[in-house]
Amino acid sequence: MDFLARQKRLAVALRDARIEAMLVTHLPNIQYLCGFTGSSGTLLLQAGTRGAKLIFYTDGRYTQQAADEVKGAKVVIGGKSALAMATEGVLKAKIKVLGIEAEQMPVSLFKYLSHTLRGKTKLKPIAGLVEQLRAVKDPDEIQQIRASVLLAASLFQTALSAIRPGVSETDVAGEMEHQARKAGAEKMSFDTIVASGLRSALPHGRASAAAIPANGFIILDYGVILAGYCSDMTRTVHVGPVSSSHRRMYDSVREAQLASIEAVQPGVEVGQVDQKGRKILEKAGYGTYFTHSTGHGVGLEIHELPRLAKGQTQKLVPGMVITIEPGIYLPDKGGVRIEDMVLVTELGHEVLTPTTKDLITL
Amino acid sequence: MDFLARQKRLAVALRDARIEAMLVTHLPNIQYLCGFTGSSGTLLLQAGTRGAKLIFYTDGRYTQQAADEVKGAKVVIGGKSALAMATEGVLKAKIKVLGIEAEQMPVSLFKYLSHTLRGKTKLKPIAGLVEQLRAVKDPDEIQQIRASVLLAASLFQTALSAIRPGVSETDVAGEMEHQARKAGAEKMSFDTIVASGLRSALPHGRASAAAIPANGFIILDYGVILAGYCSDMTRTVHVGPVSSSHRRMYDSVREAQLASIEAVQPGVEVGQVDQKGRKILEKAGYGTYFTHSTGHGVGLEIHELPRLAKGQTQKLVPGMVITIEPGIYLPDKGGVRIEDMVLVTELGHEVLTPTTKDLITL
Repeated sequence: MDFLARQKRLAVALRDARIEAMLVTHLPNIQYLCGFTGSSGTLLLQAGTRGAKLIFYTDGRYTQQAADEVKGAKVVIGGKSALAMATEGVLKAKIKVLGIEAEQMPVSLFKYLSHTLRGKTKLKPIAGLVEQLRAVKDPDEIQQIRASVLLAASLFQTALSAIRPGVSETDVAGEMEHQARKAGAEKMSFDTIVASGLRSALPHGRASAAAIPANGFIILDYGVILAGYCSDMTRTVHVGPVSSSHRRMYDSVREAQLASIEAVQPGVEVGQVDQKGRKILEKAGYGTYFTHSTGHGVGLEIHELPRLAKGQTQKLVPGMVITIEPGIYLPDKGGVRIEDMVLVTELGHEVLTPTTKDLITL
Repeated sequence: MDFLARQKRLAVALRDARIEAMLVTHLPNIQYLCGFTGSSGTLLLQAGTRGAKLIFYTDGRYTQQAADEVKGAKVVIGGKSALAMATEGVLKAKIKVLGIEAEQMPVSLFKYLSHTLRGKTKLKPIAGLVEQLRAVKDPDEIQQIRASVLLAASLFQTALSAIRPGVSETDVAGEMEHQARKAGAEKMSFDTIVASGLRSALPHGRASAAAIPANGFIILDYGVILAGYCSDMTRTVHVGPVSSSHRRMYDSVREAQLASIEAVQPGVEVGQVDQKGRKILEKAGYGTYFTHSTGHGVGLEIHELPRLAKGQTQKLVPGMVITIEPGIYLPDKGGVRIEDMVLVTELGHEVLTPTTKDLITL
């Protein structure tokens, strides 16, 4: 990973916003900027005219890890909290305007900083600056994401082997998660969703103790974290004979998903991508059952920018990696969702998820 | 779980603090107060003279789940974000002073609320009010925690069976996690730590691709979430012959851990519990290698109040469930940590973790 290039890009963005320095407290942003993967630390970035200057503050639990991982930043380890040390660093560097991550920093921390820096440094809440950089992936990141997507896809077969009426949803999830670990994943990228029968009508139906019924949909929505990068995919399969109404539900969602994917290309507003699939589901009479947005960016975190929702005007850029995941949820019938990860390319898009979208019946 | 009793306790705490209402946005606090386990929603609690009045706001993805889970609160589901609806609720109820969770609420949300409520409702940042209630567990919670602790303890045997030189740390973790799922756990309560050989000197050594060496310590630090409640335990085992210096490290940590446990009783300051074990490690010459605090509360979250650190003056109360986990980390030798979960009782304490603390060699 080219951490120095990222640090440089952030310094430029800060200078453009006329902010001389930024305190980075959100851990995925810290990892993105300097490589540290531990669970406590604070990064101070000064955007001087001679380039970025970074200091990373952490505590004694991370001495070894910081030495191994941190790139392009001076590491300071001391007896005080990382934030207390960073505050001293801000005062010492005589920083006049310090950007803070408004969407991440809790009010209590902001008050502590305001109090400690009173009169000497002005705090400037900024939103999404690092997150916007992270929305466009480096080639190194795309390579990692491809590997994470392929590992997740390989678990679909594990799920198919485990699914049969009477088996609990958590047993299916457990087999998938075990296989993920054996294949080298750090962990799942979120709580595995195995939602069977009428539970498939829960858009966020985490695997439960419920037994898979003899007939109905099963939504499998899951992903892994591999070398720090998340994947995310959904397939809906069916146990027992498929009724014509279930078939129509499935085909409509597949058609909507393909239409949204087709719309993915540089320069297109994300709201347009949402609109393409939504229109198809509305025409089919399922509009009110599509209760969420179409997708989101994926990377170090499972939910990143851009947010592919109705009316959103952010434009797609080559290097963005997004999900396309329309779904419909009928309380008395069940639900269907199909989700791929898609890379925005110079020429249009590439679907990263290799798994079939034909309806599999078990 | 007696949600109404919790709601009543919070209402009393709010009235004592002269705050008429509180906006609860931290999800574990929402779960504690009304039972909702989903990942999006906002709870408004008014502490009227005739008792607490609660409204829970969420979106269409959680219609079914909220209906199934939420107790003692009116559920409102609408087209807008939960927070936008809650803000309208605050205005409609003509609330003059609204408490917000300062340690959880991001600055950007605070700004949005300040702007939307301008002039009509004063925001009052409060810290740890629900968290202090949560520090003392209900009998129902203690029962769940016991079950979670026992499930975690059963995985120690799984780990022992999996450990042998050459096997990767992640393989050991994978076996434990698979067994946890099969036994009904929702998931692990944090990233499983399997830190072998010199990696055991990393206090937070998440399981890596590293192979277990022929000789050295292995720290196993892990827990599960069962029916919403976390467990947390650490045992250090040894592969190969144990040198006298390793034996001395282990015995010192065990002695320190037992001394801190012995100090646990109602009315004792948590800093004293930390001090008891720390003193023993200092006397043995390991003081500078004990780089973290002695423990923390455990419940719906893996890290809860109280925080058992040097100098902390909070007093132990019957019903608190805490960890006692001293450890030492010598970069050139490895590390040792031993951790139990301990319940504070009327008469003193009860160690919940049943696992032996004799040094096991494999």
